[in-house]
Amino acid sequence: MSSSSLEFCALLGITHPLIQAPMAGVQGSALAIAVSQAGGLGSLPCAMLSPEQIKTEIEAIRAATAKPYNLNFFCHAPPPLTVATPEREAAWRKLLAPYYAEHSIDPASIPAGAGRAPFSADLCDVIAPYKPPVVSFHFGLPAPELVARIKAWGGKVLSSATTVAEAKWLEAHGADAIIAQGVEAGGHRGMFLCGNEHGVHEGLSNTFPKDWRDELSTQQGTFTLLPQIVASVKVPVIAAGGIASAQGVQAAFKLGASAVQIGTAFMLCDEATTSQLHRAALTHCAAHPEQHHTQLTTLFTGRPARGITNRIMRELGSINTTAPAFPTSTAAMAPLRAAAEKTGKADFSPLWSGQNASGCRAVPAAVLLQDLLPSA
Amino acid sequence: MSSSSLEFCALLGITHPLIQAPMAGVQGSALAIAVSQAGGLGSLPCAMLSPEQIKTEIEAIRAATAKPYNLNFFCHAPPPLTVATPEREAAWRKLLAPYYAEHSIDPASIPAGAGRAPFSADLCDVIAPYKPPVVSFHFGLPAPELVARIKAWGGKVLSSATTVAEAKWLEAHGADAIIAQGVEAGGHRGMFLCGNEHGVHEGLSNTFPKDWRDELSTQQGTFTLLPQIVASVKVPVIAAGGIASAQGVQAAFKLGASAVQIGTAFMLCDEATTSQLHRAALTHCAAHPEQHHTQLTTLFTGRPARGITNRIMRELGSINTTAPAFPTSTAAMAPLRAAAEKTGKADFSPLWSGQNASGCRAVPAAVLLQDLLPSA
Repeated sequence: MSSSSLEFCALLGITHPLIQAPMAGVQGSALAIAVSQAGGLGSLPCAMLSPEQIKTEIEAIRAATAKPYNLNFFCHAPPPLTVATPEREAAWRKLLAPYYAEHSIDPASIPAGAGRAPFSADLCDVIAPYKPPVVSFHFGLPAPELVARIKAWGGKVLSSATTVAEAKWLEAHGADAIIAQGVEAGGHRGMFLCGNEHGVHEGLSNTFPKDWRDELSTQQGTFTLLPQIVASVKVPVIAAGGIASAQGVQAAFKLGASAVQIGTAFMLCDEATTSQLHRAALTHCAAHPEQHHTQLTTLFTGRPARGITNRIMRELGSINTTAPAFPTSTAAMAPLRAAAEKTGKADFSPLWSGQNASGCRAVPAAVLLQDLLPSA
Repeated sequence: MSSSSLEFCALLGITHPLIQAPMAGVQGSALAIAVSQAGGLGSLPCAMLSPEQIKTEIEAIRAATAKPYNLNFFCHAPPPLTVATPEREAAWRKLLAPYYAEHSIDPASIPAGAGRAPFSADLCDVIAPYKPPVVSFHFGLPAPELVARIKAWGGKVLSSATTVAEAKWLEAHGADAIIAQGVEAGGHRGMFLCGNEHGVHEGLSNTFPKDWRDELSTQQGTFTLLPQIVASVKVPVIAAGGIASAQGVQAAFKLGASAVQIGTAFMLCDEATTSQLHRAALTHCAAHPEQHHTQLTTLFTGRPARGITNRIMRELGSINTTAPAFPTSTAAMAPLRAAAEKTGKADFSPLWSGQNASGCRAVPAAVLLQDLLPSA
């Protein structure tokens, strides 16, 4: 192991420089426990959990392992409640109306709602008693006083950068290590410094581009993002996005990573809660890489996230400007997803996946982790 | 060197498994000669040269070195001349009208034209007497009889794949090695199997999507494209896209590459013909990676190609559906480019660049090549 990897492992108190990416909707404490017990850093995605669920999951982790673990939160600014908001929601539901009709869903029965809550002082109160050793964020960092509270109990703070500018911002605002999230990664892009004048960012953006496509052009592949972030910051850099094998881990280390974060490959593991439909889609993609087609889509949450192309992405376009701002797009899609899944169809399901599903294996997470280590 | 790299070098008769990417507009025979003489494979971009220029350049290469060299051609299907074509050209010029006015250009004075000719039997006749040892293609492969002619004189045939499906197609149609072109790469995406139903391709596409953006979602980063192509074909795979250092070369080899192709890093070399404006832009990007912002744009040729964001890309959007089909977008932009460059502005210039300019160095190409080798 390189000296930077050894330092990173010492910083977090882990054995192997390998983080299991937090993946809301496809895993809970069981996967995190398995990875942490095996010497990596297991992660619990908290963005879609209630405070009670978060407590229950933390207690499950603590009961099962004394090893370090990571709690992951989103820290998006909720969309501004402008006069346009109800109109945008109405336009979105109008666009989905043919699908509601197809599935005999009464649109009036569908509640609006956020679906994902950002980290807050209240959530910090929920986790503080447990002094979680690592807390990672997506979409920037929470308010400075919350970062300070985590650090005060000895917690290490991680966050994702999708550009060199974001990496420098995170370092300046106290991140202990930076996850360089290449465009290959599955799930949500961690983009948080968005603006038309790239390189001229004043801070966290509260504005949501209506059409994300030009903004997405800032997003780099792991092969270029990783070494450029490594050259631009002093804190350790964790490579993420498209790493799916021991060879991929070695390549990331060659490009300067102190550690790697792997998501997609863990989604078929015994301890993951990935649905059967999602498992089938990943299994097919792993066997047929010439047909493995993912897209960054805003349809499921309002922010770009990478998933396997399905019917709704094909029919509405993966980036559809009618989808309301993050995270409010989710509510209107939820009943369609539920109705289709009941008939065995993933037409409206977010099938999160990175651009390389070939590492997915239906084995215990500890087995997969061992096989991903460069020493394997 | 790995056994696959040794085999690749033996196949092409080169010393180092490193190809200098053909880069039309920023280099000619001088750069190709320098790289070939240094033991790599130098490449001559022929797509924008007349038959006479191609002959002159080949003769310059043969006079300067006995080492193998590569001739690169495009093999796009010219856009169909439908009734819509003149209307699309007119709409394009209307969109550019304010810029013509700003630069006192009479739109009636601007000729239409293709700018780039595809490989053909006539061009094959031009190069055949020289029996070029390597011929590489972009946008697929030419007609089978032309591939056969090249092979008959002992020429090796390379082409770029941007998806696993394209790699399998190239292997089935006779490519001796496949360039896995990750989305980080500068210049034109080699995409040639385009269709809305991904994975269901019947052959070369003659249709040009009007809005390339959904199609671009098929494009993978080097980190995932490379190993998935390596796993899917039997011929050697050359990694391209975002490789800018010896560490990057090593990482590509870890991911299964038999060789690497590097473009951007060579653009400041003494032997390149890169304009001063273009050199200045690359130098700035290399020094300020947090401001290095490239985009895939159709504005300059009609097909997606990666360049540094400039005024016209910001103002019209990098993918503008009004831009006519490849390669006819070029003609209307040419006088604007010329006028602006005269005043020291790159507002309308295609500033081709990959997503990592940090490897650019103003040194002789042989020096850069040595520093890129893993043994350095």
